Amino acid sequence: MPTAPEDGYLIDVDRVRAVVTARTKGVLVASPANPTGAVQPAEVIRELAGLGVPVLSDEVYDGLVFDGTTTTSPLGMTDDCFVFDGFSKRYAMTGFRLGYVIAPRRAMRSLVSLQQNLFISAAHFVQTVGLAALEHGEAHRQMMVAEYKRRRRVLVDGVRSVGLSVPVTPTGAFYVLADARHLGGDSLGLAFELLERAHVALGPGRDFGEIAEGFLRFSYASAYDDIVRAVERLRAVVPAIATRRT
Amino acid sequence: MPTAPEDGYLIDVDRVRAVVTARTKGVLVASPANPTGAVQPAEVIRELAGLGVPVLSDEVYDGLVFDGTTTTSPLGMTDDCFVFDGFSKRYAMTGFRLGYVIAPRRAMRSLVSLQQNLFISAAHFVQTVGLAALEHGEAHRQMMVAEYKRRRRVLVDGVRSVGLSVPVTPTGAFYVLADARHLGGDSLGLAFELLERAHVALGPGRDFGEIAEGFLRFSYASAYDDIVRAVERLRAVVPAIATRRT
Repeated sequence: MPTAPEDGYLIDVDRVRAVVTARTKGVLVASPANPTGAVQPAEVIRELAGLGVPVLSDEVYDGLVFDGTTTTSPLGMTDDCFVFDGFSKRYAMTGFRLGYVIAPRRAMRSLVSLQQNLFISAAHFVQTVGLAALEHGEAHRQMMVAEYKRRRRVLVDGVRSVGLSVPVTPTGAFYVLADARHLGGDSLGLAFELLERAHVALGPGRDFGEIAEGFLRFSYASAYDDIVRAVERLRAVVPAIATRRT
Repeated sequence: MPTAPEDGYLIDVDRVRAVVTARTKGVLVASPANPTGAVQPAEVIRELAGLGVPVLSDEVYDGLVFDGTTTTSPLGMTDDCFVFDGFSKRYAMTGFRLGYVIAPRRAMRSLVSLQQNLFISAAHFVQTVGLAALEHGEAHRQMMVAEYKRRRRVLVDGVRSVGLSVPVTPTGAFYVLADARHLGGDSLGLAFELLERAHVALGPGRDFGEIAEGFLRFSYASAYDDIVRAVERLRAVVPAIATRRT
């Protein structure tokens, strides 16, 4: 279901309801979201949970929210709820491949079968690290939320200063989706050009569906100083591209 | 395709050939094998590679062979060959979840799509460990092969001494498949009884298909002293079970 910067990337549940049929297997919602950084309000989650179809809730960025934003889980709002979560974002354990699903009892046998055949288990030492994160990670999460907020400011300001628009300031996760449509719609080509000329790696909007074509996704999971340096490099390149393309 | 202790658990390729049809997607062969520890001779592998269907070769125990046994890969015998391998057995990296597939070029796009959606990547530090294993692991492998051989002897002798038959001495991997059919066919119940009464964990044959019902799988990946202790405990329990059941 498309969301738009004009609506703050919020989900229009009436549009979802209009396309739910007897064949609908479920509704997938990701909040906070990659690539927009949008957080869906409680009312949206509640309405999605009330659609009468399973709700699949990707909550892997839960806990990474700013400016007083709060997240809402559909867990408990409906018996037909699957929560997908993990340690990679909240505890900066990217690459550890440790995650979990909270699911209705009736789905357990299928999930166990999938788990056993696809993964068997997470590495023992990774589980140990996960336990340590659960026991001692909260202070680190809070520290990182403060740090992400600092990085977000320098990145959003920087992206805007090089002439790209950030229509919605993200309130969750650690991404900034910038509108680069005035440079021409080929976000993949643009990302490659910026990689080669500015040595800055960006996610082309196209990777997130045709609706994000023309956008670029920045991540502020990188170090503060790297973000500052990236903005400087973009400033040396983006205006020239804008002049050439427009 | 069933294999039998009477044939040393070797594959009868004529029986495989007889069931290959136009709908056959491939032939999967595991050598050295879990749970039998059997190693298929070069001639069997060559004939399987010549069947005109893709050969899927599980070689994860390659390098763990004893008594001068050699392994053969179908790689290079046919263009339609998929080799599945990993670090867990050869380098005692169980649980690290690091593996790889060698596959025909035409399959790469599908495999990359599966990989990206199921796993994304192995953890960075796990890849680092894997590189270390490739660079420095060969001496350790040789040491472990000698050690496994020592463990195999005490386990096979011990299992036989408690009254279970080991019809084929394994020449690869680190498993011993013991015939416990004289105790009654319920290998799952028997495994649980031995777990509870002897505190020895065994794989019930049934886990490997109905054909292995009545068998028990022992692993000698455990420490030598633990194997000695396990045999002692089985000696205190198995004869009594045999008396009761027969």
